[in-house]
Amino acid sequence: MWKPDRGSKKALYQQIADHLEQRISYGEFPPGSLLPSERKLADRLGVNRSTVIMAFAELRSMGIIDSRTGSGTRVSATKWGATPRHTPNWSRYAEGGNFLPNLPFMRRIREALIQQPSLIDFASGELAADLAPSEEIAKLMSGFQYTSYLGYDNPQGSIPLRQALVDYLEKYREIRTTESSILITSGSQQSLYLITQCLLSPGDAVAIEDPSYCYSLPMFQSAGIRLFRLPVDSQGIQPEEIRSLFKKHRIKMVFLNPNFQNPTGTVLSDASRRQLLDIASELRLPIVEDDPFSLTAYDGNPPSPLKASDKVGSIIYIGSFSKIAASGLRIGWMVAPHSIVKRLADARQQMDFGLSVIPQQVAGQFLQSSLFEPHLDRLRMELRFRRDLTIEALNKELPDALAYTIPDGGLHLWCRLNSAIQDGRLLEETIKRGTVFVPGSVYGSDPGFVRFTFSRPKTEDIERGISLFCEAFRQLNN
Amino acid sequence: MWKPDRGSKKALYQQIADHLEQRISYGEFPPGSLLPSERKLADRLGVNRSTVIMAFAELRSMGIIDSRTGSGTRVSATKWGATPRHTPNWSRYAEGGNFLPNLPFMRRIREALIQQPSLIDFASGELAADLAPSEEIAKLMSGFQYTSYLGYDNPQGSIPLRQALVDYLEKYREIRTTESSILITSGSQQSLYLITQCLLSPGDAVAIEDPSYCYSLPMFQSAGIRLFRLPVDSQGIQPEEIRSLFKKHRIKMVFLNPNFQNPTGTVLSDASRRQLLDIASELRLPIVEDDPFSLTAYDGNPPSPLKASDKVGSIIYIGSFSKIAASGLRIGWMVAPHSIVKRLADARQQMDFGLSVIPQQVAGQFLQSSLFEPHLDRLRMELRFRRDLTIEALNKELPDALAYTIPDGGLHLWCRLNSAIQDGRLLEETIKRGTVFVPGSVYGSDPGFVRFTFSRPKTEDIERGISLFCEAFRQLNN
Repeated sequence: MWKPDRGSKKALYQQIADHLEQRISYGEFPPGSLLPSERKLADRLGVNRSTVIMAFAELRSMGIIDSRTGSGTRVSATKWGATPRHTPNWSRYAEGGNFLPNLPFMRRIREALIQQPSLIDFASGELAADLAPSEEIAKLMSGFQYTSYLGYDNPQGSIPLRQALVDYLEKYREIRTTESSILITSGSQQSLYLITQCLLSPGDAVAIEDPSYCYSLPMFQSAGIRLFRLPVDSQGIQPEEIRSLFKKHRIKMVFLNPNFQNPTGTVLSDASRRQLLDIASELRLPIVEDDPFSLTAYDGNPPSPLKASDKVGSIIYIGSFSKIAASGLRIGWMVAPHSIVKRLADARQQMDFGLSVIPQQVAGQFLQSSLFEPHLDRLRMELRFRRDLTIEALNKELPDALAYTIPDGGLHLWCRLNSAIQDGRLLEETIKRGTVFVPGSVYGSDPGFVRFTFSRPKTEDIERGISLFCEAFRQLNN
Repeated sequence: MWKPDRGSKKALYQQIADHLEQRISYGEFPPGSLLPSERKLADRLGVNRSTVIMAFAELRSMGIIDSRTGSGTRVSATKWGATPRHTPNWSRYAEGGNFLPNLPFMRRIREALIQQPSLIDFASGELAADLAPSEEIAKLMSGFQYTSYLGYDNPQGSIPLRQALVDYLEKYREIRTTESSILITSGSQQSLYLITQCLLSPGDAVAIEDPSYCYSLPMFQSAGIRLFRLPVDSQGIQPEEIRSLFKKHRIKMVFLNPNFQNPTGTVLSDASRRQLLDIASELRLPIVEDDPFSLTAYDGNPPSPLKASDKVGSIIYIGSFSKIAASGLRIGWMVAPHSIVKRLADARQQMDFGLSVIPQQVAGQFLQSSLFEPHLDRLRMELRFRRDLTIEALNKELPDALAYTIPDGGLHLWCRLNSAIQDGRLLEETIKRGTVFVPGSVYGSDPGFVRFTFSRPKTEDIERGISLFCEAFRQLNN
């Protein structure tokens, strides 16, 4: 993102005016469109608001922008030979369409992280830079003899990667499958998107865990899916509730994350697993099992997936590299009956024409290399360490104000605040102080919960980040 | 894909039976599901049909499969402890959903190419392996210091790649823009998908060229969009027709590929361009300009994009690496007003959580390297050579049976056959002989047209491939 050059001889406000003039002249902000507010722009550019006010005054004097009290600053309607009467009404197009925008809290968090890269980030559900196998991947890539064909890939994903996954799934997840039952996707998000778009129809009912990551996915609503909740306690969901949802609402699918569930960190009990598989079989109900966290089990003994005990073929299994290696690779997979894999591969071709061959090749080689196991060992150790740091910091500052269960795997700590504080206010207070988390309501839970992703901040920032959060909490609690 | 091992001591039929038993036991083919026919399986595995019949007999004797006359071979309903009464009815799920499957011809062509990799491929709209910059990319990758963060990417795409594209667009396409107006996508397909999903609503009318690539995209129908045609002649479309479509059907957007149009190869005339921009401005109508082929202009003088003359901001510009470098990179871009870019970036996060950072880094470095220009020079020379070879071969064998305009850029030759032959029959006859093309009806044209992608087969295969096509044509024409 452009920033003014503080070393330049040109005044800051003049640099900003020139930059805005350029962006307007390139059509980025069409005639009549709204510019960001003075305050926002000042934040984003890291300057005082008065500097932006001077830049706007400069542009106004040139007739490029108009400001009107209460309605913000707009690109002049008659400048640049174009008038808004001739430009498409882009804002109407941007508001149209079926596909819903992200939840406001999620957009707010993303925006804050872009504007203030120094924020201590407990919000992004991913690994910190030093936990990702960057060196391992650099090593693999530098040894690359890149001679393979750089054409469109096989619609199901590259065959060598699928072959590597057959071995991986058997060795690490007790899942026996063949490459023809595997679809490579760009991650769990794309797997879920394909399932909701292609296997469900508007009006269909599905059951999801509450709280759950799935609540934060407007894609369910965009697809017209009706969501019903399966409450999660310390043992996971109660499978019997599926039966009653089926009777009442004819649910057509169940979405579950049985191991180190996001956000609660719980592991579904053995008894519930057996019961769940029986019910799925009895009702002929497909279960989508999302399993991104298992290999992070801090003691090195990951819980089995449901799919390993799926005798009937009720389960679509979803896995990913994002939480155990690097989200930036964008490599995930799905194991499903052949007819489903074929159908989803065909639809995916229509959406993005398949995946890049390069990260697939990197992922396949990484899985089969001697670098993978040591990476996992280090990751587990580091995650446990960061979990403990987070808990220690919280206990130090807010011993009685919150409750949590200590997770045995995963990237998140789920906390209940023993105090009624508005999610949005707490988030803003926290951002103001220099840290950010995800409010529990994003996961569909009642107010008063927060999710801390302890895998994302740097180790040395965890204590300070938690301390800033606690400061904000105490401030609002007064 | 698995194939029996002809060097093994185990009989072929036994290997096939074992392999199928394994796939069935892994749940790939659930109880009660239909297996591929004997003929199809024989084709796919490269064995005689009698071998498959013996393998099926073996599985039948073990009670694993059932065959019934007229209804094919199914996985036994009672084997493996599971009965179909307990397995989800996957085929009903596969048939459900809003998203339509690909056109039958496209699926047939893809299937044929997977089953017979030796087919001479005039169908896939991409570059041959030896035209892609594989060596250049290998060189860039082996020099990689992969130290950057492997986390989720910026929702609009990596900033260094967007910065490289700002320079690229100015230098090669006369488009001046800034990185904040650019959205990186996985290619033109994803750009079009995002636009149809997010900026249009079911029932909206849009205008597309006829014939056009867009006809082969069920995604328009999946989104409930009504398509209206703008006939393409040797000068491109007639812009006046847009005005009448707007009056009659209130079209909300126009999709155009003005330079070396797919499939016809035509370039929109200068007069039509001016007229088109005037009409767009007058009607406030957004135009989506797809510009994948311009840099292939064989004489080294690519026609300008519409976007370069877009004073009003009517145009969303779409570009891609797929046709000028490598489709397997999966890197494309879109230039649009900031509000549109933001909206689409947000939606894309919901669909696939963004792109892999690795191919973006490769693409950005390639654009800025000294390897890019020489690659383009070589590409143009090679494409012209292949175009000439294709035309020569057609002229030799079918001088009067077809008509075409010689394209000055792009990857395709569009031919009219002076004879009424059914598309499907010609396709099957051609596949049988060992080559494949795309029937014109895929592009919405009247029957009797074919598209040859001369960039895809190896140079040394072009003459033979065309000869096989001509043989099939003469056979059906008798």
